[in-house]
Amino acid sequence: MEQGLLIVLSGFSGAGKGTIINKLLEQYDKYALSISATTRKPREGEVHAREYFFVSTEEFLAMIENDELIEHAKYVDNYYGTPRAYVEEKLQKGIDVILEIEVQGAVKIKEKFPEAVLIFVSTKDAKILEDRLKSRNTEKAKQIEDRLLRAAKEAEFIKQYDYILINESIEEVTKDFNSIIESEHKKTFRNNELIEFIKDSLKNRS
Amino acid sequence: MEQGLLIVLSGFSGAGKGTIINKLLEQYDKYALSISATTRKPREGEVHAREYFFVSTEEFLAMIENDELIEHAKYVDNYYGTPRAYVEEKLQKGIDVILEIEVQGAVKIKEKFPEAVLIFVSTKDAKILEDRLKSRNTEKAKQIEDRLLRAAKEAEFIKQYDYILINESIEEVTKDFNSIIESEHKKTFRNNELIEFIKDSLKNRS
Repeated sequence: MEQGLLIVLSGFSGAGKGTIINKLLEQYDKYALSISATTRKPREGEVHAREYFFVSTEEFLAMIENDELIEHAKYVDNYYGTPRAYVEEKLQKGIDVILEIEVQGAVKIKEKFPEAVLIFVSTKDAKILEDRLKSRNTEKAKQIEDRLLRAAKEAEFIKQYDYILINESIEEVTKDFNSIIESEHKKTFRNNELIEFIKDSLKNRS
Repeated sequence: MEQGLLIVLSGFSGAGKGTIINKLLEQYDKYALSISATTRKPREGEVHAREYFFVSTEEFLAMIENDELIEHAKYVDNYYGTPRAYVEEKLQKGIDVILEIEVQGAVKIKEKFPEAVLIFVSTKDAKILEDRLKSRNTEKAKQIEDRLLRAAKEAEFIKQYDYILINESIEEVTKDFNSIIESEHKKTFRNNELIEFIKDSLKNRS
């Protein structure tokens, strides 16, 4: 059996990553979402082992030490990382695993796993992004400004991704995401067993 | 505007290339089919400038000489080649152009146009291919045997293609073909203008 795909989804804050992932998990059985470990404090409504594994800095550093993370990065004052065991177990079962991680982590994943599929989701332009952040009504002007400044930096990394999706409609973008993954499964380099089988059946006709 | 995609479709005789192309052109407006030039004689029902541009060997050699073909190959005793003008005109207009060519030509296209998308269509195994060739009722046992021997040789090239499609249902395989092309259009390297636009809009917020 072919391995599952390691999929990285990144995007600007406000571009709709979370909504896309929820929609994907709701509409398709075949995806598993990797849950990151972090040293940041849970926000209101966040649940341990659902949004994140919330761990202490000591615990996080021990995970790094024991090679239990496939990537990790520090953002502002907090660590974020992807636990290895869950991801590898799913991939071996042929299940596609989505990592929702930021740009530094994404680049590290691509270095370690060149067969991973990196998808970046964006709005069409900065104005739309700003409007979406404002419409959330949960953030202050200063926070919105910080997120937009961060987006400008993140945009420098888009070319290191394999695909770019523009989120204009959640239905469309979710369908496009799924199409990309289905198409990736048809890449010849992911189908060595199938190709060998076809070759053998043509060579050894009875 | 981004260029159209150069798409190469190859596959074993009997795997359904022709049916897929007809279905694609029927269901979607966006594809253009390149018509090859050949020195072989028209078969019954074939029309000049529809199935092929039927030309003399002298004419074909002149086309090579004048760099009017983007690839050409000799198969059995006949030349086959892809006229350049039509393909380049469509690509420049942003239209995706399909070349239905055999494996040698496909490999040459990939060398010259690394951004081309190469798709190979196969049946699940040799038995199904043989059954399909027999069910056509147009070919003799000897011809079918020749086609299967040729398929065994062609199978060695599958790994040089980007994607493999297994034709189990014409509806499914046509949809999959189109999904692959739509996904390819979302590759970051094909969206430089869009990415620059997003970057600029984030840098130059007013």
